[in-house]
Amino acid sequence: MTDWWAELGQLQDRFWTCLCDGAAGRHPAARFLALATAGQTGGAEARMVVLRGADRGNGSLTVHTDTLSAKVSELRADPRASLLFWDPDLRLQVRLKVEVGIDTGQVVDADWQRVPEPARRVYGILPPPGADLTAPVDLATLPDRSRFAVMTCTITRIDALHLGRTTHRRAMFRRSDDWIGQWIAP
Amino acid sequence: MTDWWAELGQLQDRFWTCLCDGAAGRHPAARFLALATAGQTGGAEARMVVLRGADRGNGSLTVHTDTLSAKVSELRADPRASLLFWDPDLRLQVRLKVEVGIDTGQVVDADWQRVPEPARRVYGILPPPGADLTAPVDLATLPDRSRFAVMTCTITRIDALHLGRTTHRRAMFRRSDDWIGQWIAP
Repeated sequence: MTDWWAELGQLQDRFWTCLCDGAAGRHPAARFLALATAGQTGGAEARMVVLRGADRGNGSLTVHTDTLSAKVSELRADPRASLLFWDPDLRLQVRLKVEVGIDTGQVVDADWQRVPEPARRVYGILPPPGADLTAPVDLATLPDRSRFAVMTCTITRIDALHLGRTTHRRAMFRRSDDWIGQWIAP
Repeated sequence: MTDWWAELGQLQDRFWTCLCDGAAGRHPAARFLALATAGQTGGAEARMVVLRGADRGNGSLTVHTDTLSAKVSELRADPRASLLFWDPDLRLQVRLKVEVGIDTGQVVDADWQRVPEPARRVYGILPPPGADLTAPVDLATLPDRSRFAVMTCTITRIDALHLGRTTHRRAMFRRSDDWIGQWIAP
């Protein structure tokens, strides 16, 4: 039997399993992903996001956000972003280049209905994210449906790196190549 | 006694302990950080890097890299980047805005001397990172001293977010304010 990291198809199956399990809350290493965006005055920003959905058929990932968070402004200015996770047990790094669409309003009604009541409170914190506070918990937290947004991250490229104890293997999977995969130098 | 996440000074002490322990290999959550850089054709790139040094006095972090990696080109084009870690046990996210200087040559001789022999082999892989391979391990790995670079990440701003079970607290620490810290909305 071939090791999963030694064959392009098995490698791809493995990281999609991580992503689907991460979205379902069953795989901690792929539950929180780093999201990198272009900064609005140059440079780059990064923060963790919670993976809410993974659709291998469409090659897309779903994340929820507050419309008043800085990432929404950044992604509206430049929707080309990256998502990243590192699985220490598998010794696997996965970098995903994505184009992010942001949906709000009626189109995300069904998603909002599935957000549990306690989690809805994060979509209503006032003052908005990043505003100065005099005391750390000087906040109003009234759920505000209009601030709930769904980010659909359409994957254009996946860069998977396995850091084995003796060998490092790295492969690139591109939407434009129908995800067939190509070994590249690590 | 105050909880560490409820007081600006203790919060700052805590994440610096994470960073210093991460650099020393004693704290896995802060050993591998996500590094976000501006993409050379727009958007943003992200990958994990290994934290090699943390200097609270200077407010800087150290990372090693191969001069032929894409991040070096990206950082030479725009040195404003972000580093990020998430500590699941502490429920603490730390986002660091940095300006990255890249040193090579004689000035990093002492750093190179401290790189163990097996690790030196990653600074010599041919073809260079990202090049297509016909087979996954079709690589030459002869240590090449000239490809070793030290990235000094001078921190300009630190954004710390504690996701407590009942309350979320977030603070911003700025070099320009001498790191005194300010609570901000989460």
